[in-house]
Amino acid sequence: MSLIVQKYGGTSVGSPDRIKNVASRVAKWHGEKHHIVVVVSAMSGVTDGLIKIAREISPEPTEREMDVLLATGEQTTIALLAIALNQIGVPACSFTGAQAGIVTDGVHTKARIKNITPKKIHDALEGGQVVIIAGFQGETADGRITTLGRGGSDLSAIAIAAALKADVCQIYTDVDGVYTTDPRIVPEASKIAELSYDEMLEMASLGSKVMQSRSVEFAKKFGVVFEVRSSLNDTSGTIVKEETGNMEKVVVRGVSLEKNQAKVTLSGVPDQPGVAVKVFKALADDNINVDMIIQNVSSSRVTDISFTINKDDIAKTRRAIEPVIGVIRAAGFTAQEGVAKISVVGIGMRSHGGVAAAMFEALSGAGINIQMISTSEIKISVVVDESVAVDGVKAIHSKFHLEC
Amino acid sequence: MSLIVQKYGGTSVGSPDRIKNVASRVAKWHGEKHHIVVVVSAMSGVTDGLIKIAREISPEPTEREMDVLLATGEQTTIALLAIALNQIGVPACSFTGAQAGIVTDGVHTKARIKNITPKKIHDALEGGQVVIIAGFQGETADGRITTLGRGGSDLSAIAIAAALKADVCQIYTDVDGVYTTDPRIVPEASKIAELSYDEMLEMASLGSKVMQSRSVEFAKKFGVVFEVRSSLNDTSGTIVKEETGNMEKVVVRGVSLEKNQAKVTLSGVPDQPGVAVKVFKALADDNINVDMIIQNVSSSRVTDISFTINKDDIAKTRRAIEPVIGVIRAAGFTAQEGVAKISVVGIGMRSHGGVAAAMFEALSGAGINIQMISTSEIKISVVVDESVAVDGVKAIHSKFHLEC
Repeated sequence: MSLIVQKYGGTSVGSPDRIKNVASRVAKWHGEKHHIVVVVSAMSGVTDGLIKIAREISPEPTEREMDVLLATGEQTTIALLAIALNQIGVPACSFTGAQAGIVTDGVHTKARIKNITPKKIHDALEGGQVVIIAGFQGETADGRITTLGRGGSDLSAIAIAAALKADVCQIYTDVDGVYTTDPRIVPEASKIAELSYDEMLEMASLGSKVMQSRSVEFAKKFGVVFEVRSSLNDTSGTIVKEETGNMEKVVVRGVSLEKNQAKVTLSGVPDQPGVAVKVFKALADDNINVDMIIQNVSSSRVTDISFTINKDDIAKTRRAIEPVIGVIRAAGFTAQEGVAKISVVGIGMRSHGGVAAAMFEALSGAGINIQMISTSEIKISVVVDESVAVDGVKAIHSKFHLEC
Repeated sequence: MSLIVQKYGGTSVGSPDRIKNVASRVAKWHGEKHHIVVVVSAMSGVTDGLIKIAREISPEPTEREMDVLLATGEQTTIALLAIALNQIGVPACSFTGAQAGIVTDGVHTKARIKNITPKKIHDALEGGQVVIIAGFQGETADGRITTLGRGGSDLSAIAIAAALKADVCQIYTDVDGVYTTDPRIVPEASKIAELSYDEMLEMASLGSKVMQSRSVEFAKKFGVVFEVRSSLNDTSGTIVKEETGNMEKVVVRGVSLEKNQAKVTLSGVPDQPGVAVKVFKALADDNINVDMIIQNVSSSRVTDISFTINKDDIAKTRRAIEPVIGVIRAAGFTAQEGVAKISVVGIGMRSHGGVAAAMFEALSGAGINIQMISTSEIKISVVVDESVAVDGVKAIHSKFHLEC
């Protein structure tokens, strides 16, 4: 008998019929004599609807009260799913985050889980019940309702799995696993059976969009094995766990593509200490998310600094940078839309040379010019013209024999 | 400085604009340096919407989970009202029933309040905050969410006022007080300034529909002075409190009318012990609400038993009674629609004779025939033909000089 934590997102529980469908799936696992804990999100659209009403009342709603408001979304889902399970003869009971013993710090709207006291969960499981828990929420030690911010329900599921020492945490979503690349771009993309936490982190932050980094980091920290799988079929998904020696045999695990990027170049920047700080502090102050940053070793007394941003932030970046130009005495700056970032990820890179060369060869073979390069221990990223990015992904995917 | 508990119902908080309006009203009281605790219901329509979704999933939803589901309604309102108050510069914080320390028994969907531990409420009030509490809900000692059933938000307000020893509990509604009779029937009806709990109980159960009896009974038990007043204007309403000697000077406080009644008569019933039990047990088993019951002293060995029911229950009553007819050897039974009940209420009746005579004289003067009569210590009720009931109310109202 295993203890399984399952997490269903907002789309999977988006209507009464879908909730009934989730109940059937849970019933099947419960029928196989597993102990089941289910973590759910708010029904899709509900959270946005609540935010909209709050904004009608106040442009900047009190964060403490936003948490009280938004927590109702998941509370609705847990009740409905428990009702659906009881209706088909599966004993089930629901707990809010607070009732489940999820204690967080007091940073409203983006609280961090401090600890979980799962006594009530254990009691209910031992009584043969399916336990349904509201994701995304908890309470402070002094009893205020908190929410965990974006991706919070995944985090709840991973944290509960850790506290319960669950055998596995299943993250149900609308894709059936993590693929070697986006199957909409490369139909031959294959589902990855196993992935290390670090690879998942790079895949997630690179645009696989399956899970937020913080949930993967939490799983890594507490060694929670989790599986990303589909709520629409019964095929097994992608298992994410501690890396094993075996994993290193695959040099490149996947290729990811991020479109809608822009490349910003500050030219003629005096090569002095403190210059970079001024630039990137100005951007951070305006909440502009900067991705790749490149500065070449300068042979003269001036250098160029380049970085990538989301193209929607170009105007904002221009406003933030312009006052700084004068201060640091740069020659000027350009912002160029229409670029994309391609990355290859794999822990096998650590022990295998030649990955970068093979990647550049694939791009060159496809006649694609590389504009920027950035590398980490298990990742190589390049910036290319957006119009040829898909061709680049295809060429690289094929070069590393990632097709199924 | 007074401590005031205010309760706003679903219509008063039925939209973002109405919530802002309530916030302005609360701000005014808070500005006058009162300590304010606000109890709110779910926005109108929300509870029914939640019940509808639950019924789509299960015809008989688990009661424990219905409480979890319905409690989200009031939780939404407390957050929105707290946001609205903070927006206009009034410090305010919200508490769910559980957070406010409202402990109930474990009878889901119709729990009874066992005790209230108002420490958090006191702390917040002392910190200068307006405290907003979700009505209709509480939690069991072992931490399950419960709801209090119909009229539960009024009950929450009265119970919180009792626990806090509030100076007054203001029940805001869409009428501006309790009237001597329905002003839609008698335009001259006047608002009653003060009423005893017992009078309010008789008025409420007789169709004034302002408050459920259980809330009035709770207020009586704990001596909570409350005021029924309008959320649409600033005029004072009706104060309900322990009776005073002064109250007895008014013989009749009000006249109430209940339409849509039916009169059922069992004729030729053998005058033996145990007969009435069989009849009314059969009705109770089918959840048929029986109001007036009359049995005359019989001179022969058979008697007639008459009672009133809601006319919608006629078919159900027929099905319940028919099997009993044979058992008790009654001659037969008739059910007659188109009757109404008129009652006069007043604690002054206890010490003043002639009230019944004056009431019957008024009806007789209007040419109205009395079909049934029933009396209690502070109430006299008669059943008349529905077509002349309004004329009857007018005649009685005028007879006792209740007009303003």
